[in-house]
Amino acid sequence: MSEADFKYIIDTFFALFAMVLIIFMVPGFAMLEAGLVRTKNVSSVLTVNTMIYAVASIVFLLIGYTVAFGSWENASMSIWAAFLFQMAFVGKTINIMSGGVSERVKIIPLMIFTVAMAGVIYPLVVNISWGADLLDGTFLDINMYDLAGSTVIHSTGGWALLAAIIIMGPRKGRYKDGKIKVVPASNIPLVVLGALLLWIGWFGFNGGSVGSISSVENADTVAKTIMNTNTAGLAGAIIAAIIMYFRYKLLDITMILNGALGGLVAITAGPDLYDIYTPILIGAIGGALVVFAVPVFDKFKLDDPVGALSVHLVNGIWGTLAVGIFVDSVSIMDQLKGIVVVALFAFIVSYIVIFVINKIVPFRADDDVQVEGLDVNEVGVEAYPEFKRAI
Amino acid sequence: MSEADFKYIIDTFFALFAMVLIIFMVPGFAMLEAGLVRTKNVSSVLTVNTMIYAVASIVFLLIGYTVAFGSWENASMSIWAAFLFQMAFVGKTINIMSGGVSERVKIIPLMIFTVAMAGVIYPLVVNISWGADLLDGTFLDINMYDLAGSTVIHSTGGWALLAAIIIMGPRKGRYKDGKIKVVPASNIPLVVLGALLLWIGWFGFNGGSVGSISSVENADTVAKTIMNTNTAGLAGAIIAAIIMYFRYKLLDITMILNGALGGLVAITAGPDLYDIYTPILIGAIGGALVVFAVPVFDKFKLDDPVGALSVHLVNGIWGTLAVGIFVDSVSIMDQLKGIVVVALFAFIVSYIVIFVINKIVPFRADDDVQVEGLDVNEVGVEAYPEFKRAI
Amino acid sequence: MSEADFKYIIDTFFALFAMVLIIFMVPGFAMLEAGLVRTKNVSSVLTVNTMIYAVASIVFLLIGYTVAFGSWENASMSIWAAFLFQMAFVGKTINIMSGGVSERVKIIPLMIFTVAMAGVIYPLVVNISWGADLLDGTFLDINMYDLAGSTVIHSTGGWALLAAIIIMGPRKGRYKDGKIKVVPASNIPLVVLGALLLWIGWFGFNGGSVGSISSVENADTVAKTIMNTNTAGLAGAIIAAIIMYFRYKLLDITMILNGALGGLVAITAGPDLYDIYTPILIGAIGGALVVFAVPVFDKFKLDDPVGALSVHLVNGIWGTLAVGIFVDSVSIMDQLKGIVVVALFAFIVSYIVIFVINKIVPFRADDDVQVEGLDVNEVGVEAYPEFKRAI
Repeated sequence: MSEADFKYIIDTFFALFAMVLIIFMVPGFAMLEAGLVRTKNVSSVLTVNTMIYAVASIVFLLIGYTVAFGSWENASMSIWAAFLFQMAFVGKTINIMSGGVSERVKIIPLMIFTVAMAGVIYPLVVNISWGADLLDGTFLDINMYDLAGSTVIHSTGGWALLAAIIIMGPRKGRYKDGKIKVVPASNIPLVVLGALLLWIGWFGFNGGSVGSISSVENADTVAKTIMNTNTAGLAGAIIAAIIMYFRYKLLDITMILNGALGGLVAITAGPDLYDIYTPILIGAIGGALVVFAVPVFDKFKLDDPVGALSVHLVNGIWGTLAVGIFVDSVSIMDQLKGIVVVALFAFIVSYIVIFVINKIVPFRADDDVQVEGLDVNEVGVEAYPEFKRAI
Repeated sequence: MSEADFKYIIDTFFALFAMVLIIFMVPGFAMLEAGLVRTKNVSSVLTVNTMIYAVASIVFLLIGYTVAFGSWENASMSIWAAFLFQMAFVGKTINIMSGGVSERVKIIPLMIFTVAMAGVIYPLVVNISWGADLLDGTFLDINMYDLAGSTVIHSTGGWALLAAIIIMGPRKGRYKDGKIKVVPASNIPLVVLGALLLWIGWFGFNGGSVGSISSVENADTVAKTIMNTNTAGLAGAIIAAIIMYFRYKLLDITMILNGALGGLVAITAGPDLYDIYTPILIGAIGGALVVFAVPVFDKFKLDDPVGALSVHLVNGIWGTLAVGIFVDSVSIMDQLKGIVVVALFAFIVSYIVIFVINKIVPFRADDDVQVEGLDVNEVGVEAYPEFKRAI
Repeated sequence: MSEADFKYIIDTFFALFAMVLIIFMVPGFAMLEAGLVRTKNVSSVLTVNTMIYAVASIVFLLIGYTVAFGSWENASMSIWAAFLFQMAFVGKTINIMSGGVSERVKIIPLMIFTVAMAGVIYPLVVNISWGADLLDGTFLDINMYDLAGSTVIHSTGGWALLAAIIIMGPRKGRYKDGKIKVVPASNIPLVVLGALLLWIGWFGFNGGSVGSISSVENADTVAKTIMNTNTAGLAGAIIAAIIMYFRYKLLDITMILNGALGGLVAITAGPDLYDIYTPILIGAIGGALVVFAVPVFDKFKLDDPVGALSVHLVNGIWGTLAVGIFVDSVSIMDQLKGIVVVALFAFIVSYIVIFVINKIVPFRADDDVQVEGLDVNEVGVEAYPEFKRAI
């Protein structure tokens, strides 16, 4: 057997392994968000997550992959494995966005936006960052290092979310008489299960983004990438726990998990480039940023029930900058330019698309629907019909 | 290292990878069914699922594998990996059957049937379809193409279920005064989690059924098999959502997930043979069949709380036929003959076995046990003892 | 490509695969324990499980790995993959301990103990059993066969738990007026999900402990190890079910799952060495030991809400002995010596460490905190705030 055949086989197998791990993020996001919202909106959030996976993936098959990569060819592994790996990413961008507008978003307009995001917006971001590179040679050409998408995935989703929140406004009753109404998570085991499935999925996300495991050097890089990814998550969880403890003498598990996710987002741009201790610092800063950012967004009445802006947008930016700060061979100006170009593109285009859809099919559920709960009105299925409500 | 050794190592590793994915279907089925039944029957359903895995697997080790394959030999990979991969399948057939009789089936007779199914009935179906081929040379010899078991697994389980439903009758109070009593699912997050774990398990089921990833051609086939499997699931979910929306303006998540599962069952006979667009059609038809079949079974008072007949039996047949329709090299008559021979064998033998067991140890829980719930009477453990019931 | 490079690549990939499976044990333990405790302590148990993973893993990175293995070098696979695989183990020891003191343990002292366990105690056990071997040449030198840690992981955790239970005492009200108050599990689906995730994780635990899949012999050994691991779990579940049925005519699912876990612990010392039928016996004895041990610990007022002593300590000892009994080439005296040396070390050191920490930061939550629930007092987040309590 030739070395090329060996690499083709092993890298195809490895891409499938990584892809499967990423697909665990589908139940991951679904359980996390189902646990964080109120019981009256749980079926709706679950339907949204399921349908995003279905619609985004099929649109990426029909349009998105071609927009991103130009051609369906791949010499280093099976093209079908390469497709599956990329396809596993696309829904995540929209999951980030949908989570942040839960408890008020209607499913049909969200699905229309999903078509736009998976077919054109996200693929164009991939195109200029990792793919066929439409902007090559222009003054907007970017040269950012972003291994697995701190900017390409997480910030893109975060910018789309920011646009959606601005257009849709906060949940009814969330900011009233100058006060912020606390909405407790309805099911903490689901939150933990979801966050841990996301964590495991991240090993596939970042490890798989190395693209090959079929040489000694690449095997080392993949393993270090997974190790550093994990380390940043650990540090994010620990720092969030420490801050919560010193502030409140309480170890708020939802904040600890968001801290972990913040660390994971932050490491995603360059887990292959760091030594094994730097991720502790990057993840810790990521976790701290989440804790401090959450109330800031609330101050601006940007209502984000799951903390997605803090986790994905803030840390997407931080993580991309971090590569420029900690890795000598990466220019911080290149990183900044990448962040800004993607930000402008993702925010402006998402804003326009959401704005236009919103004129035709409004995104926001009516106030009385929000009060009654989206489940009855959008899904027709209550999440826990046999359990008596305490509140 | 010789090429044969390389293939042996890689294909053993790959079979173990695929097997692990399939084992995720054990919690997959367990969570799906636990979410679909009423809270008073949740522990019972979970016990059934756990015990099916335990009993079916050990019976397959002691008897079933030999019945199916004749000898414990395998030159192309570790025999233990080959066994594990096959063992991961066997419980599924019985899961399909047990799900459809939940909320009224007693565990002990079901375990006796599990011994018969895992030791003889299912292994004989494998024998004539994939294995040692007892019928070779007889007029019943079948030559059906069924890569991963649309017929061998899903229809077989479906026929056994149909036999069980006919013998056991519907749940008490389900069909009363000419009306159908709607029984809402008790825990939607579990339904979603379970269905998504099944979906992920399917990658191992179908991908692993290619049998080898250790050549460039096989690596391509495995990747395309997983891709097509996923695509059919996507299409099944989307079509079910579209139908529900146009009918009711509601996106019933349980129907969407059953649509996805229908698409996944339908693609299972030939995911390696299609181009990458045909699975959209096969899965969409599969999802639509589920939506339309569910009320038909209810019309005949075939009470199936989880929709298993629609998902597994109807789509097992459709998926097997589809290979004959869409793949030139596969004869539709061969497919039909396979469907009919397996149907006759699986239905008649299951019917006789269930009928005989039922005379000695009745399958059906008494009416008052059904009213009180199976958990208290069969398991002695309530699923959610601290939660106050609303209904 | 050289054979050494081939092996390096495949074994790195395989270690990452095994490590990922083991990480599924993090949600596994979390869900199992969250399901077994009362709703008022669920968030606390989940926080404990999350923080153990975070703290133990980072301490193992900073200190523990060096204590265990002396140097960060590995010629046969990527050192980062070797680290990750070992890191995935370390939290388990503490999970075993924390589970058994749930519903009364405070998180901060537990985290301090986690630092000691992950940084020094467990690494020293690894050192003398699998690692750099500090005791080599002394009269305490042990020569025990313990492939994946019946003693090194499970008994070590069990001894630490026994020390903790002795120091902390039972939950308030558990043993009163000579009676044992039964505390029912609050969420059975989570118990089942957690146990099944642990089961799947065990394939990585034991299969990965073979250390290599890159030769035909090793591929066979890995596959047989996973097969035998699974078989013992099956047998443990079945025997527990049989005992429960003959005693109570009820199939208590929590006991069935603990029986399965007992079988899995018991097989862990030597799954690679047995033929394919012996694991049935080893697992069955393991499952039976769990059923009989649970009331014995209660008789001694050793209050263990999740049955961890019966599952992990009793079966850790049984499993290690079993290798000496059933495998000719392994000396039962060597096994006994290993069990005793590790027992003395783990119990005495854990006792001292817990005793000292307890003097400074008491482990035990006050009685009124236990009555109100740890969630409100330690985490500040109720697990199910919207669900009305029945009890």
